[in-house]
Amino acid sequence: MKKLINDVANVLAESLDGFAAAHADLVQLDEERKFIRRKSLKGGKVALISGGGSGHEPLHGGFVGHGMLDAACPGQVFTSPTPDQMIAAAEAVDQGAGVLFIVKNYEGDLMNFEMAKEMAGRDIETVITNDDVAVEDSLYTTGRRGVAGTLVVEKIVGAAAETGQDLQTLKSLGEKVNKRSRSMGIALTSCTVPAAGKPTFSLGDDEMEMGVGIHGEPGRRRVKLMPADAIAEEMIVAILADLEAAKSSPVLLFVNGFGGTPAMELYLMYHAAAGALARRGVKIARSLVGSYVTSLDMAGCSLTVTALDEEMISFWDAPVHTPGLRWGM
Amino acid sequence: MKKLINDVANVLAESLDGFAAAHADLVQLDEERKFIRRKSLKGGKVALISGGGSGHEPLHGGFVGHGMLDAACPGQVFTSPTPDQMIAAAEAVDQGAGVLFIVKNYEGDLMNFEMAKEMAGRDIETVITNDDVAVEDSLYTTGRRGVAGTLVVEKIVGAAAETGQDLQTLKSLGEKVNKRSRSMGIALTSCTVPAAGKPTFSLGDDEMEMGVGIHGEPGRRRVKLMPADAIAEEMIVAILADLEAAKSSPVLLFVNGFGGTPAMELYLMYHAAAGALARRGVKIARSLVGSYVTSLDMAGCSLTVTALDEEMISFWDAPVHTPGLRWGM
Repeated sequence: MKKLINDVANVLAESLDGFAAAHADLVQLDEERKFIRRKSLKGGKVALISGGGSGHEPLHGGFVGHGMLDAACPGQVFTSPTPDQMIAAAEAVDQGAGVLFIVKNYEGDLMNFEMAKEMAGRDIETVITNDDVAVEDSLYTTGRRGVAGTLVVEKIVGAAAETGQDLQTLKSLGEKVNKRSRSMGIALTSCTVPAAGKPTFSLGDDEMEMGVGIHGEPGRRRVKLMPADAIAEEMIVAILADLEAAKSSPVLLFVNGFGGTPAMELYLMYHAAAGALARRGVKIARSLVGSYVTSLDMAGCSLTVTALDEEMISFWDAPVHTPGLRWGM
Repeated sequence: MKKLINDVANVLAESLDGFAAAHADLVQLDEERKFIRRKSLKGGKVALISGGGSGHEPLHGGFVGHGMLDAACPGQVFTSPTPDQMIAAAEAVDQGAGVLFIVKNYEGDLMNFEMAKEMAGRDIETVITNDDVAVEDSLYTTGRRGVAGTLVVEKIVGAAAETGQDLQTLKSLGEKVNKRSRSMGIALTSCTVPAAGKPTFSLGDDEMEMGVGIHGEPGRRRVKLMPADAIAEEMIVAILADLEAAKSSPVLLFVNGFGGTPAMELYLMYHAAAGALARRGVKIARSLVGSYVTSLDMAGCSLTVTALDEEMISFWDAPVHTPGLRWGM
């Protein structure tokens, strides 16, 4: 295992401390490292809290700030945060207008966020993301996995929350964005969890995993390495087959790197995916390209297509000021 | 070689086309793909042009936009752009106030930018960056290599250019920022140039390259893999030994990923480097963490320390609106 680390036991703590120090103008790390919170809270606003296993940075901690999350709870690598983290985060950022949990559909996360909701004694609602079309059930989920579409939910609901929308309205909006977002990923290499010290799975020199999950979970099938155009074509076909709304709505095309893939390849994949959409008459209205929902050092990428409407476009364009996503201010 | 590409001959063209399409709100790609230019030029302003071999994205094309570059010329992977590219770029973006070339110190780049300057028949000045303290002369340079400090020069000089500073003033400012910026890099793996199809160099499973260049050029020595704290310590010692100004000035600490290293490790390196600075009484005033000056898919990172003054801080903080760096607007 080759990583820029000291002791595997301290990877998360040292990385969180570095993150909090580098972005001290925007965020604060709880003393016990239970959560990352927005430095300046906005009174009267519904508090948005997300979280999940670490190793997907900048998701979720990197999306704490104006126009996105109020707090994020980092679990150990690829491991759900514990309920006490979400309870402490809610205590810290609840402004009296209620709390919205945004949770990726993994059994551990669902269980722990649900437990936190029951124990917190607050007005809490939950939006569950499950945008991955690759597989129906999977290693860690009943139903579909929540992947990069979660960023889109956090951005759009985050912008709506800044305008003062109430908890139920935000929950409905989050469910709408999730329903109109579909993703699929592929891996060229495995990731390596620091504590495990070896790759999560093995791929031959000429193989790739089609439909991989963001923890290196198996996808649809193991195939020979394909050209970028063919990869994008298969992913876009799978996504559009499940996203009726893209036939009549402009879309956001989000090309997401998994951590080990450079920008040059992501932009080439954007070109390939945009071509696949254009051939089907789908109009791209917004774009995002970068490594935002990662899987440690895995090489590969995912495509997310979100069918937009005017409300969603307006919230997507709204100012955001977080360590990982920043525009308009 | 495992990459998200189609034909190796088309990697650059397809990636540039994807980049231009994804960021059509900010930039335009020349029809012959000679340069990327800012979509909206600002009359009366000195035009800033950079460029170099591709494979370092987002540098330089990703830094075209308000507050940074007016144009960038992408060469083939790790190969200097040709003089006709810089001449065409200057023709497109010169607003009558002159042109400033920002050039990383590599022999091919120097020669081609110099030739363009002579042939263009315009008022052109040049700032050469050479911030890498790892080695004195190297595989492709006489003198030191220009590496991630180039981003700092482009950001600060770009902000100054927006305020209407003249060509000579900007050249002096660029030289000052370069002189006050020092960098050093390490690699855990090689990069793979698409056209070569195999790694540029080989490293054992337990080895790293200390002082590596951004094309995978040899550094100071090949060593056994070290803990992050020890790596940061050695880099910071080498940097500070050559940066007298950091003893009395607040600094920018810039932790740069080379393309194959995820955010989690970069933040851990930030933590390690910040500790090494703190132990020497150096005060961090600004921070930047991310993969901005990459080496294709190489795993590793560089540290850059810039000794700031009030003018530099003010220009660093000024609004920037480019595909790769965006804040304040």
